[in-house]
Amino acid sequence: VKAADHLNRLSAQLGRLPGVGRRTAERMAFRIARDPEGLLADLTEALRNVAEQVRCCSRCGSITTVREDPCPVCADARRDGSVLCVVEDASDILAIEASGGYAGRYHALLGKLSPGGNSGPADIRLEELIRRVDAESVSEVVLALNTDVESEATCGYIRERLKEHAVRVSRLAAGLPAGSGIMYTDSVTLARAMRGRQAM
Amino acid sequence: VKAADHLNRLSAQLGRLPGVGRRTAERMAFRIARDPEGLLADLTEALRNVAEQVRCCSRCGSITTVREDPCPVCADARRDGSVLCVVEDASDILAIEASGGYAGRYHALLGKLSPGGNSGPADIRLEELIRRVDAESVSEVVLALNTDVESEATCGYIRERLKEHAVRVSRLAAGLPAGSGIMYTDSVTLARAMRGRQAM
Repeated sequence: VKAADHLNRLSAQLGRLPGVGRRTAERMAFRIARDPEGLLADLTEALRNVAEQVRCCSRCGSITTVREDPCPVCADARRDGSVLCVVEDASDILAIEASGGYAGRYHALLGKLSPGGNSGPADIRLEELIRRVDAESVSEVVLALNTDVESEATCGYIRERLKEHAVRVSRLAAGLPAGSGIMYTDSVTLARAMRGRQAM
Repeated sequence: VKAADHLNRLSAQLGRLPGVGRRTAERMAFRIARDPEGLLADLTEALRNVAEQVRCCSRCGSITTVREDPCPVCADARRDGSVLCVVEDASDILAIEASGGYAGRYHALLGKLSPGGNSGPADIRLEELIRRVDAESVSEVVLALNTDVESEATCGYIRERLKEHAVRVSRLAAGLPAGSGIMYTDSVTLARAMRGRQAM
């Protein structure tokens, strides 16, 4: 086997990471092979550490450690279990936690519906959501998905699926992001902000 | 240690890869932790394989396998050892080999001079180049570095350093890339192509 074949195997794996195209993956593989300041060993060690220590919470799908399942948020009795915030990814949970504006529990879908990208209802943690809504007597589901087309469609689908269940469904407000200017805001955002204008 | 700390350690390592900013590294770490279709194990295995099998050629700095040092190009007696093509990275060697337009040997600097990025002459394989020029009776050094400012400065520095040595120094032609249009070509490229215009 030639050296380039070993690097190709590595860049094929790197290409599975989000935002990494073929050329970028190749550059990464070469950089790793050049191994500046122990990069290869450090990266391998960090991966091994994640493999050993990090798990998905079996209840909410967020990240947690092997020793804490369910995760600290799920296990925290002070959290309001009647409100369930649905997100696409575990990273979204950390962002919402950092905002400090939410005291309920979470449910990460770990994906979204994508007709083109062959991700259907069975590929995301949707049945788990339905089960939790019933089993945990949830009174409100807050959809905190992204605002691209597929995420919006996923919201619509979940809304439909929850019609039969005794639960309110809400979604995050659409409108102007903080610190932005009207003239720099895209027209879809502006139209939604106008439609959702609030009395003050 | 919280799960997020494990991910932060991983994203710090991912952030050392070329073209990976802090946000991208975070997204990558979360994707790896979610571990779709065995990504974590596959990536770790590919890294282990590179660590075990791939080395830098002790002569030219290109990538090679543990069993082949010097690398196949350095060891190939049919290559013209009187011409030495100097590149920044091992990946450049593969690109030039793929072009089929070169039959000499290579020398990878594995970097370039970068006053701001604290990379000086001792941080690249420059002394190795000087030694090879003398030891291997090289008659021509072809500089095939990139065309950004730091690479150009590195070319100038190498040119100076080789003044005392009995060797011709050339560089790749500057001009229009194949398949491009005049109106889409930046003005620096156009000026260089005009200055270097060739009789036909």
